[in-house]
Amino acid sequence: MSPKITTELLRQLRQVMKSSRYLTEPIQAYIVPSGDAHQSEYIAPCDCRRAFISGFDGSAGTAIITEQKAAMWTDGRYFLQAAQQIDSNWTLMKMGLKDTPTQEDWLVSVLPEGSKVGVDPFIIPADQWKRISKALKSAGHVLVPVKENLIDAIWMDRPQRPCKPLMTLDLSYTGIGWKEKIAALRAKMVERKVLWLVVTALDEVSWLFNLRGSDVEYNPVFFAYAVIGTDTIRLFISGDRMADPSTREHLLLDSSLEAEFKIQVVPYESVLMELQAICVGLSPKEKVWLSDKASYALTEAIPKAHRYLTPCTPICIAKAVKNAAETEGMRRAHIKDAVALCELFNWLEKEVPKGSVTEISAADKAEEFRSQQNDFVDLSFATISSTGPNGAIIHYKPVPETNRALSGNEIYLLDSGAQYKDGTTDVTRTMHFGTPSAYEKECFTYVLKGHIAVSAAIFPNGTKGHLLDSFARSALWDCGLDYLHGTGHGVGCFLNVHEGPCGISYKTFADEPLEAGMIVSDEPGYYEDESFGIRIENVVLVIPAKTKYNFSNRGSLTFEPLTLVPIQTKMISVPLLTQKEVREVVDGGEQTHSEGPKDLVS
Amino acid sequence: MSPKITTELLRQLRQVMKSSRYLTEPIQAYIVPSGDAHQSEYIAPCDCRRAFISGFDGSAGTAIITEQKAAMWTDGRYFLQAAQQIDSNWTLMKMGLKDTPTQEDWLVSVLPEGSKVGVDPFIIPADQWKRISKALKSAGHVLVPVKENLIDAIWMDRPQRPCKPLMTLDLSYTGIGWKEKIAALRAKMVERKVLWLVVTALDEVSWLFNLRGSDVEYNPVFFAYAVIGTDTIRLFISGDRMADPSTREHLLLDSSLEAEFKIQVVPYESVLMELQAICVGLSPKEKVWLSDKASYALTEAIPKAHRYLTPCTPICIAKAVKNAAETEGMRRAHIKDAVALCELFNWLEKEVPKGSVTEISAADKAEEFRSQQNDFVDLSFATISSTGPNGAIIHYKPVPETNRALSGNEIYLLDSGAQYKDGTTDVTRTMHFGTPSAYEKECFTYVLKGHIAVSAAIFPNGTKGHLLDSFARSALWDCGLDYLHGTGHGVGCFLNVHEGPCGISYKTFADEPLEAGMIVSDEPGYYEDESFGIRIENVVLVIPAKTKYNFSNRGSLTFEPLTLVPIQTKMISVPLLTQKEVREVVDGGEQTHSEGPKDLVS
Repeated sequence: MSPKITTELLRQLRQVMKSSRYLTEPIQAYIVPSGDAHQSEYIAPCDCRRAFISGFDGSAGTAIITEQKAAMWTDGRYFLQAAQQIDSNWTLMKMGLKDTPTQEDWLVSVLPEGSKVGVDPFIIPADQWKRISKALKSAGHVLVPVKENLIDAIWMDRPQRPCKPLMTLDLSYTGIGWKEKIAALRAKMVERKVLWLVVTALDEVSWLFNLRGSDVEYNPVFFAYAVIGTDTIRLFISGDRMADPSTREHLLLDSSLEAEFKIQVVPYESVLMELQAICVGLSPKEKVWLSDKASYALTEAIPKAHRYLTPCTPICIAKAVKNAAETEGMRRAHIKDAVALCELFNWLEKEVPKGSVTEISAADKAEEFRSQQNDFVDLSFATISSTGPNGAIIHYKPVPETNRALSGNEIYLLDSGAQYKDGTTDVTRTMHFGTPSAYEKECFTYVLKGHIAVSAAIFPNGTKGHLLDSFARSALWDCGLDYLHGTGHGVGCFLNVHEGPCGISYKTFADEPLEAGMIVSDEPGYYEDESFGIRIENVVLVIPAKTKYNFSNRGSLTFEPLTLVPIQTKMISVPLLTQKEVREVVDGGEQTHSEGPKDLVS
Repeated sequence: MSPKITTELLRQLRQVMKSSRYLTEPIQAYIVPSGDAHQSEYIAPCDCRRAFISGFDGSAGTAIITEQKAAMWTDGRYFLQAAQQIDSNWTLMKMGLKDTPTQEDWLVSVLPEGSKVGVDPFIIPADQWKRISKALKSAGHVLVPVKENLIDAIWMDRPQRPCKPLMTLDLSYTGIGWKEKIAALRAKMVERKVLWLVVTALDEVSWLFNLRGSDVEYNPVFFAYAVIGTDTIRLFISGDRMADPSTREHLLLDSSLEAEFKIQVVPYESVLMELQAICVGLSPKEKVWLSDKASYALTEAIPKAHRYLTPCTPICIAKAVKNAAETEGMRRAHIKDAVALCELFNWLEKEVPKGSVTEISAADKAEEFRSQQNDFVDLSFATISSTGPNGAIIHYKPVPETNRALSGNEIYLLDSGAQYKDGTTDVTRTMHFGTPSAYEKECFTYVLKGHIAVSAAIFPNGTKGHLLDSFARSALWDCGLDYLHGTGHGVGCFLNVHEGPCGISYKTFADEPLEAGMIVSDEPGYYEDESFGIRIENVVLVIPAKTKYNFSNRGSLTFEPLTLVPIQTKMISVPLLTQKEVREVVDGGEQTHSEGPKDLVS
């Protein structure tokens, strides 16, 4: 991976930062956030502005360009990748390390007195705006919204915003019709005494209307906003996608139905104007509900007195707790996914010794097997197919320049998943086609112990996922090892492979408590730079647990693995496992029922 | 424990809430916070306003009185105690339970439109003021500062503010002289570019000047503020305490010394006026450093543009990391404390069978043995001496009406500690003088497993204590049990037995990372209402850990028990312990070296 040469681009950007064509006054710094106007993690090519200006194309990172400097903040998953992709114009800011300054602290330390810092108000979340703006203000600077995106201004061949056809999902997949979802949502709005709810997250719009799209790679979503009133529904969406008869029928656009379920279709671009118009008509005390992660632009459109901001919307929580149809769909998807991966592992065992398999061809083969499964739609993220040192790049994606052949001499890590019409998968297995070293087995077994500790954990109702994170690390910590990423993320049902509001991470304290029906990943790892990477990941369903006692009738929860892909037993150093852990691997889930148990108990 | 009858007091308070003598306009609700003007946890009798108005005298709780209602918020440690101490005029609000409203949500739900809510600006921390004020404002109400305390207005026999003699501590106890501490503090101020620092916490003033007092029971502190400038030191303190020659000598009040170390002694009451005067003289950009937990009154005295607020002051962090002299002092204190408790346990074993020992007499005997130790000053908190059902009241203090005799039929829990001139102790042991039931042993052993899991934990440098909290609960959770309090708190060195900024709790996310030299308690428990209470508490020192590998050269930490008091082995169900846990108990610390090991490994 060679870095992108950005000298000329940065020169152009710095010129634009002083240009009266875009700005009434010059700015001394420009912030390029990671997301799009919907604060998506995965974004369309037209929104990859940070990758365009810096070369770093990981899923998380913020670039800040001043008149003299350029700096890139990213987290532990991307330290190596970012270091390889950015050139010497850039300083890498490793988030989570003790000495790394925050964006605002860094800005304050480098800016000349009384500086102006610009950002596109549509792609910065309001909570970030607030934090940065406050810090800048108290140091005598000011954060200003720059309406025209300055990256777009210098991005000559910027792609068009995608506008692909929609897919409708019937009740057998969704379990609940969209009218019912809207009714439940309005009940929540009444409970919180709000008149309007603005839906800005793409997966929330998709889930609410039981529609899917393919505007963004890997995420079956489409560009749209929705504004739900107590008796109106507005869907902001572009193009002629509402001309499709099956979509019209699904949304009952041509049916006579109760007025409060009539969907008004409005152009995507008009959301800000419409929201402003709604706010003009509000009486005192009437509130508009919005996620506090929504863009600064939309948040500002609602006068402060009318804003009702919460860390997550009621849709976000309803979507996270899967209903019976969704859970069954996820189970079916994981069976199909395991079949495909077993076929792949069988193929790899035969082909790797011939020396003809590379990271890319292995990833392609995985996709081929998956695509043969019923209701396969797409991958759920870019396959991480990495062998040897590439495995230490946590979110590695093989490209021709870095592509390595799989061999009997190195560890191979495959983190992959698919979108099936009935569910989303995400699984990581780490394997060796020769003889792993004692040290590799030792590290693998610590990771496995952490994986089991989370998967087998029993915890009271109301527990937040971040309280389980240390369980995954304890075996590694005992030997002085660790991994610089969270342990688990929420997983959508034929939706985004990363979704809120639950997760298992030392970083997330704003997570919602785990409850039965939520689905998260359990994926501890261990990475040795320039040597190897290990990760073991299952998708697990939160289920009620029966305990011996039931303190204060609180009830308990635990996890049931949905992932059914075998774990390679030759990577395990059995003496490092406790009897209880062996029992968990053998009886706990079904993920090792092929050859695991016999090896382990022998 | 019979509840305090508060009907008449509430009537008087509600009258005062409408009185033009104290207020320009009537208020519809009055908030009575727990603390004093220094946000102390333990308070002087004159500051026990919440206990006066409600009867509930636990260490944490907030009362709110409206025209019709009275409600008391407290946490899991005090649910039972509060329920017993408040009468039917009051509603108990159990914090931490899912359905309990916050103070502000409750206010909004009960107040008539456009209400005024009053509070004493000196005893409400600025962060709480901000939170409540914001919530009230957005619901159309307003939070107003009421200068004259309304509880004081109806409290006829309110005690005087204490003003007891001071004690000076020499270098053999403190390790660092006060001038050196001030110099280090000023270096931090330069680093953060602040001109002034206001010290409001009583233990911070005590630590900074190497002075101790006895104005507040159990906490060796005295009423004072300090304001440190870049070349001035102001100590706000009442009475003639500065007339004492040894204090004058200690503070070098009559010596000729560098101007920047000359201490100006100013009356305690004048702090607000002096602070306002300082702020009038500030140039733009000049900042005053204050804890964000300081009172609203002092915070408001600093114009917003000049405020530099942080969750903890540099003194708070410096105080938490004990130096060599302090650590050695803490070790000595814990040896003496263990001797005293071993004497007590020996006495109990002989006396309890005679039926003559009660909770109160056992507590008195513990104090007697402790007071015979060298440099004993006081207890470090009210001894929790509780048998049988009283043990389930987590912060129980025996009084004649509740006093039970210790017997061979019930579990006895003793949570106690002392202030020695060289260190502070805090230890809990749970024991049985007859034959514990299988269930009691089972619960005790789960608590012990949690205690060991924390004590033996190895974790990377930079880890915050809250990430260790679940380790203490895991064994309990497996059986559906739990306890409703945190696992550990910082412990001062001949200072407050509860101190920040570190701790081990699922609740504290603002805790500072643990570092070598910090001292915390490790005290999981299990409580069965109306039946028994179990808690095992050691004070532990954070020390560097040697690990097999040392990932990224981050370094690791673990704990070393300072507490040396034996754990009663007959309470342990040995088969429930793993081999590793048995080894930890036998080799890990010295706390069970008397009879434990032999029993455990046999």
